Amino acid sequence: MAQKPSIPKGTRDFSPVEMAKRNYIFDTIREVYALYGFQQIETPAMENLTTLMGKYGEEGDKLLFKILNSGDFLHGMTADEVANTSTLKLAAKFCEKGLRYDLTVPFARYVVQHREELALPFKRYQIQPVWRADRPQKGRYREFYQCDADVVGSESLLNEVELMQIIDTVFTRFGVRVCIKINNRKILTGIAEMIGQADKIVDITVAIDKLDKIGLDAVNAELAEDGIPADAIEKLQPIINLTGSNEEKLATMRQVLSDSEVGLKGVDEVAFILSKLGNLNNPIELDLTLARGLNYYTGAIFEVKALDVQIGSITGGGRYDNLTGIFGMPGLSGVGISFGADRIFDVLNQLDLYPKEAVNATQLLFVNFGEREADFCLQILAKVRAAGIRAEIYPDASKMKKQMAYANAKQIPFVAIVGETELAEGKVNLKNMTTGEQSLINADSILEYL
Amino acid sequence: MAQKPSIPKGTRDFSPVEMAKRNYIFDTIREVYALYGFQQIETPAMENLTTLMGKYGEEGDKLLFKILNSGDFLHGMTADEVANTSTLKLAAKFCEKGLRYDLTVPFARYVVQHREELALPFKRYQIQPVWRADRPQKGRYREFYQCDADVVGSESLLNEVELMQIIDTVFTRFGVRVCIKINNRKILTGIAEMIGQADKIVDITVAIDKLDKIGLDAVNAELAEDGIPADAIEKLQPIINLTGSNEEKLATMRQVLSDSEVGLKGVDEVAFILSKLGNLNNPIELDLTLARGLNYYTGAIFEVKALDVQIGSITGGGRYDNLTGIFGMPGLSGVGISFGADRIFDVLNQLDLYPKEAVNATQLLFVNFGEREADFCLQILAKVRAAGIRAEIYPDASKMKKQMAYANAKQIPFVAIVGETELAEGKVNLKNMTTGEQSLINADSILEYL
Repeated sequence: MAQKPSIPKGTRDFSPVEMAKRNYIFDTIREVYALYGFQQIETPAMENLTTLMGKYGEEGDKLLFKILNSGDFLHGMTADEVANTSTLKLAAKFCEKGLRYDLTVPFARYVVQHREELALPFKRYQIQPVWRADRPQKGRYREFYQCDADVVGSESLLNEVELMQIIDTVFTRFGVRVCIKINNRKILTGIAEMIGQADKIVDITVAIDKLDKIGLDAVNAELAEDGIPADAIEKLQPIINLTGSNEEKLATMRQVLSDSEVGLKGVDEVAFILSKLGNLNNPIELDLTLARGLNYYTGAIFEVKALDVQIGSITGGGRYDNLTGIFGMPGLSGVGISFGADRIFDVLNQLDLYPKEAVNATQLLFVNFGEREADFCLQILAKVRAAGIRAEIYPDASKMKKQMAYANAKQIPFVAIVGETELAEGKVNLKNMTTGEQSLINADSILEYL
Repeated sequence: MAQKPSIPKGTRDFSPVEMAKRNYIFDTIREVYALYGFQQIETPAMENLTTLMGKYGEEGDKLLFKILNSGDFLHGMTADEVANTSTLKLAAKFCEKGLRYDLTVPFARYVVQHREELALPFKRYQIQPVWRADRPQKGRYREFYQCDADVVGSESLLNEVELMQIIDTVFTRFGVRVCIKINNRKILTGIAEMIGQADKIVDITVAIDKLDKIGLDAVNAELAEDGIPADAIEKLQPIINLTGSNEEKLATMRQVLSDSEVGLKGVDEVAFILSKLGNLNNPIELDLTLARGLNYYTGAIFEVKALDVQIGSITGGGRYDNLTGIFGMPGLSGVGISFGADRIFDVLNQLDLYPKEAVNATQLLFVNFGEREADFCLQILAKVRAAGIRAEIYPDASKMKKQMAYANAKQIPFVAIVGETELAEGKVNLKNMTTGEQSLINADSILEYL
C-alpha cells in the first residue's frame, strides 16, 4: 500500500464526534448572538491582498497565506527582474489574493463596501475559519475558527453591557464557571498621565500583573528596572495594591485619578457598565492589569478566564475607534467580542460537559438479516424517521457480529433485531445497548417504546 | 473618501438576509442527512497539492488555487532557472498546498488516512466551501459550497435507495416539486456492447437526449454523423423511442439487452432500487440519457430537476468504485449525492418558499428614550430573552424616526415604546409593525402578548 496521505501541518480533520461537539459550541454561541439581535454575515475566504496587507503589522504580513495568481503569474518578468526583487516583493507580484487572517479586517471591509445597505448601528456576528502561517505548536493551528460579534456605529455603553451579558449567557449554557474581567484603556491612559510615563504603560501593567506571584517588593524592583522613577512608583502603590470589591476599586481609582480627565472618564465607563449588567451568573472583576491589544482598544477591554481549567483566555474583546478608517470611512466606533472555540472545546472536553443529545448521532440501527427481513424493517424505518428519530439500517446482510460492532463504534443506543421468527410474528426485538436489555415488542409500538 | 474596497472576482459576501436563507438550506439538508444516520466531518481548506493534483484532469490542475509557500519560496532557485522553467512547473516548485477543489477527493483522502478509526460502512456528510479558478460568470463562482453525502465500504443497493429517499425528503421539506432521474452506467455499457460501439456511448446519449427538441429523424441523422453504422442505429430504435412507465421501460430494456450480462445487471439494479423506495412525494423517472460524469460512475446515476423553475440540475450523484484507490486503498465502493446549494437558493428565491421564521431575525426592539426609560426596558428585555425571544434595545437615545427606520430595515415585527408616561405607569406601548396597531399593555404581560 502506498504511503498514507496526510494534510498540511497545522491543519486538522474533524471526525464525526469532534464535529458534533464543535457544532454544539457554534450553535450555542450562534443562538445567544441571535437572542441579542446580532445577525450573521459571511465573507469570502480569499480577500484582495491590498485589503489585508499592512493591517496586522510587519509580522502579520509575513503570516498571510498568499494565493498564486492563475495562469502566467510571472507577468513576463525577466530573469534579471526576478533576481533583483526581494522574496516579499516577488510574492506581492505573483499573488493578488490572500486567505483571511482574522474576521475583523474583512468585517471592516464589508461595512465600508456595503455601507449604503446597512442600517447602523450594525450588529453582526461571523463564525468562520481564519488562516495564519504561524509555526504550528500545541494548541496553535494554521486554520482555526473565530466566533466574533461586533456592533459598529454606536458609542453607547449599552453595547458593552450586552456583550458582557452574552458572555455570561454563553458560558452559563455551557455549564462552565468563568471570571469575566473588565478594564478600560482610558484608565490605563490616566495612570500613565498621572505618573508622567505615558510610554511605559505596558511595562507597568506587565509588572503589576506579577504581584500575586512575586510580591510587592519584586514588583517595585521590576518597575525601577523598567526605568520608572521612584516618585512615580510611589504614586503607583495604591494601584498595585488595589483590592476589594469592584466598587471599592472604583472608589480608589477615582481618588488616584482625580487629576486625569481621561482616567476619570474610564472609571465612569466601567462604573456605568457594571451598574447596568443586572444579575449575572458569573463574577465580574475589574482588573487593571488587563491590557490585551493595547494599541487597538480605546475604551472597554474584556477577557474571560475559565475557573476550573488551567488555560489562557477563552474569550476577549473591547472597544475600538475608527475600525473602518483604514478603508476610508472614518468616525465609526465599534465594540466586539470573540469566543475562542478551540480553547472552549478543550475546556468542555476536560470538564466532560457535552450534553449527550448534542453528541449522539444515530439513535436506532436495524440489523440486516437479508432481503425479506430488510423489507419489513424498511417500512418501520420510514415511520421512525417520519417521527424525527435518527435511524438507519445496516445496508448489507453481514454477520451479526460485524453489525453489532458497527452499532458500538457509532455509539448507537438502540438496535432493532428482526430475524425470521420476529418477521413471522410482526415483532421487533429491541436491544438497549447501554443496559443490554432486550424487549420483544410489536412493530407498531416501536415509537412509543423509544 | 478612498476608493471603495472590493473582493476578488467570483467571490461573494453574504448579507444577514442571505445568510439566514442559506442557513435554512444547510440546516434542512443537515437534519435530513442526520435522520438517515449520516455523520458530519470537516477537512481543512488547504490540502497538500500532491493530494489534489492529477485528480481532476489536466484542466482541473490548472483550476486549482495554489498557495505560495511561506518565506523563501524560491528555494534557492537562480533567476535563470526561474526564467527557464514553465509556469506550471514553477507553480509546483513555489507551492506545496492548494485550496480544496471539491469534497470528494478530500473525503477519499480522509477515509484512507483515518481508516483505522472508521467503522465501515462509513456514512459521512460534509458541507463546506470549495474553490475553483474558473472564469467567473452568472451562477458560476470561484468559491461555493458543496453539500455531499457518501457511503463507502458497502455495495448494497439499499444505500442508493436511502440516498433517493433523502433527496425526496429534502425537497419535500423545501416545498420544491422535483423530478428525480435515475440511470445506471451498466445499462449504458450494455447498450454500447449490444451495438458494438463501446467508445460512442457519450455521443449516443447526447443524441438521444435531443429527441424531444429535434425529433426522431434528426436524432438518427446525428447518430449517423457521429459515425454509428446503420445496423447499430437500427438496433438503437427501441431505446430512442423508449416511453411509458418505469416498469414498461425496464421491460423493454430487458428485452433489448437480453444478450448483455452487464446491461441486464444494470436493469436489475434500477428495478431493485425502484422497488424499495416506498412512497415518495416526487416522481422518479428512469432516464437513459442521464450520463453525468460517465467516466466516474460505475453503477447508479442520479440527477434532480426542479419542475417549476427553469434551471440546470439541482442535485446529482451516483455510485463509483475504487474512490480510495488513488490513495492506495483499493476495493472500497461508494455512492454519494451532492446538493447544489447555490441553485437551490435561486429556486427557493424564485418560488418565494423561505418560511418567515427562518428568515426573521430580531422579533422585538425596545426604543431608547434615555437612561431612565432604558433601565426599565433592560429589565423587561432580560425576561423576554430568558423566554427565548430574540430582542434588542436601540443602544443610543437617538431620534424616534431613526430608531423606527432601524426597526424597518431589520424587518423587526414588534417595537416596544416606553416613554415617560409609560414608564410612570409601568406599561409598554407595543407596536405591531406589520399592522401598525399599537397596544398599551402591562410590562409584566408582554410575554403573553408576544
